[in-house]
Amino acid sequence: MAVRRARPKTRVPIVRVQGEKVNRNARDLVAGEEPMEIRLVAGGERATVAITMRTPGNDFELAAGFLHAEGIVKDREEIDLIRYCTEVDEDQHYNVVNVELRGSVLPALDRLERHFTVTSACGVCGKAQLDAIELRGAPRLASGTVVPVQTVTALPEVLRRNQDLFGATGGLHAAGLFDMQGELVALREDVGRHNAMDKLLGWAFLERRPLDDQLVCVSGRASFELLQKAVAARIPVFAAVSAPSSLAVDVALRYGVTLIGFLRNGRFNVYAGAERITGLEADPL
Amino acid sequence: MAVRRARPKTRVPIVRVQGEKVNRNARDLVAGEEPMEIRLVAGGERATVAITMRTPGNDFELAAGFLHAEGIVKDREEIDLIRYCTEVDEDQHYNVVNVELRGSVLPALDRLERHFTVTSACGVCGKAQLDAIELRGAPRLASGTVVPVQTVTALPEVLRRNQDLFGATGGLHAAGLFDMQGELVALREDVGRHNAMDKLLGWAFLERRPLDDQLVCVSGRASFELLQKAVAARIPVFAAVSAPSSLAVDVALRYGVTLIGFLRNGRFNVYAGAERITGLEADPL
Repeated sequence: MAVRRARPKTRVPIVRVQGEKVNRNARDLVAGEEPMEIRLVAGGERATVAITMRTPGNDFELAAGFLHAEGIVKDREEIDLIRYCTEVDEDQHYNVVNVELRGSVLPALDRLERHFTVTSACGVCGKAQLDAIELRGAPRLASGTVVPVQTVTALPEVLRRNQDLFGATGGLHAAGLFDMQGELVALREDVGRHNAMDKLLGWAFLERRPLDDQLVCVSGRASFELLQKAVAARIPVFAAVSAPSSLAVDVALRYGVTLIGFLRNGRFNVYAGAERITGLEADPL
Repeated sequence: MAVRRARPKTRVPIVRVQGEKVNRNARDLVAGEEPMEIRLVAGGERATVAITMRTPGNDFELAAGFLHAEGIVKDREEIDLIRYCTEVDEDQHYNVVNVELRGSVLPALDRLERHFTVTSACGVCGKAQLDAIELRGAPRLASGTVVPVQTVTALPEVLRRNQDLFGATGGLHAAGLFDMQGELVALREDVGRHNAMDKLLGWAFLERRPLDDQLVCVSGRASFELLQKAVAARIPVFAAVSAPSSLAVDVALRYGVTLIGFLRNGRFNVYAGAERITGLEADPL
């Protein structure tokens, strides 16, 4: 193996080409990417819930955030302990996370298993993903919280300034949690955009922090999955430096999330929930 | 539903903010993102293999590319027919793709099912993802093919110029297939980077095109999954406009893929297989 395991970044030998110039003895830092297995443990049974490709670091937050976002673990008190599995090979030690539950039985994982069902009837259809979020019975977000337009436009600069790994590797997504005055509360990075979000929200979940007066800003695009996670965590305002997808807009409209896209250089688009942004009244275009 | 189904892009009402200026009657094109279910059909049985969030368009190529990359369908001749499922609700019609096989039994899907196994023993560990690619028994790529440095540096501009949907929505990943003289052979776009790659390689698979003298250039980063797909399709050169991950570098080194990253403005880094690039000898830095 040329690249060692469980590192957030790794230095590798490269050939650097700049126009006519070639350096055959250059080195470059690359963002770590390794498989992490998330397992549930309860009453002497184990279940592998997911294997995700992630950047090592904040692994327990990632596990907790994923399980909460998927609706598998609903309450902080259900979790007894999170630790690395010690029964696997030494070099895989940090890539297997056991989430040990207080309860004596594993929760039903039917919803996850839908992907691989074999049947002779027509059964589930492509609607499953959309139904899943509804099945969890998430109500619309109440619209009480507001955010000043100045807070919104200042977000990307604060996010960028605090991205340690991106600065080193140029290869990571970031998700930042902010209060409505634009103070950065927490920031997480990962090669996977959904992992960065899971780490951030997993941290808040483990810390028992309510998020209904906070906002999230991500360094990339706004996808369906990210909006789904915001709804599950009851975050009223979601801002993305890049473009949203159609289904992200759809989820934001349906669940009352304020969705901001293309947030850069003092400009942004509001795709849903503009009523939460104050200071927009003054000067119509 | 605010956003209609099965469209590659959708026009939505937005509030556009530019500094002090606010336009409450603006519109914006957003990239389509919808769930697509991929099903295998053989001998009167069906299996749901995956539900992926994708940008509608080239759906059959996406299904074929995914199944080939995962090693589930190894040979073009195994596929009899690909069509949308007509048994689901009208509005889901274009989101369920049936891949009908010539054989009378469904292939084993054990490898996919590993994600959700319940066991009381320690069993599979995080190594599964890496093992999976080895299990398929992919040999190293032979190093015969070469690509001139001028071809490499010209790739991003050709890719960008041909990205129809990105131009309209600013929200899509692209994967382009090129010959070694830099001629664009095919290009596919999607909100998901792996979907763009699956669509591109699925097209080639369905067309029975050998790829061992072609290269792929992607608009974003080089992840493990993309390199894995390149190896499965026997593509010797993989170029990314943005950063590679540590595991992408690892796969490239192990399987003999030439991996190029940060390819922009006449510069690039070579993380593996520099011997396939000609014209680098002349002028050392």
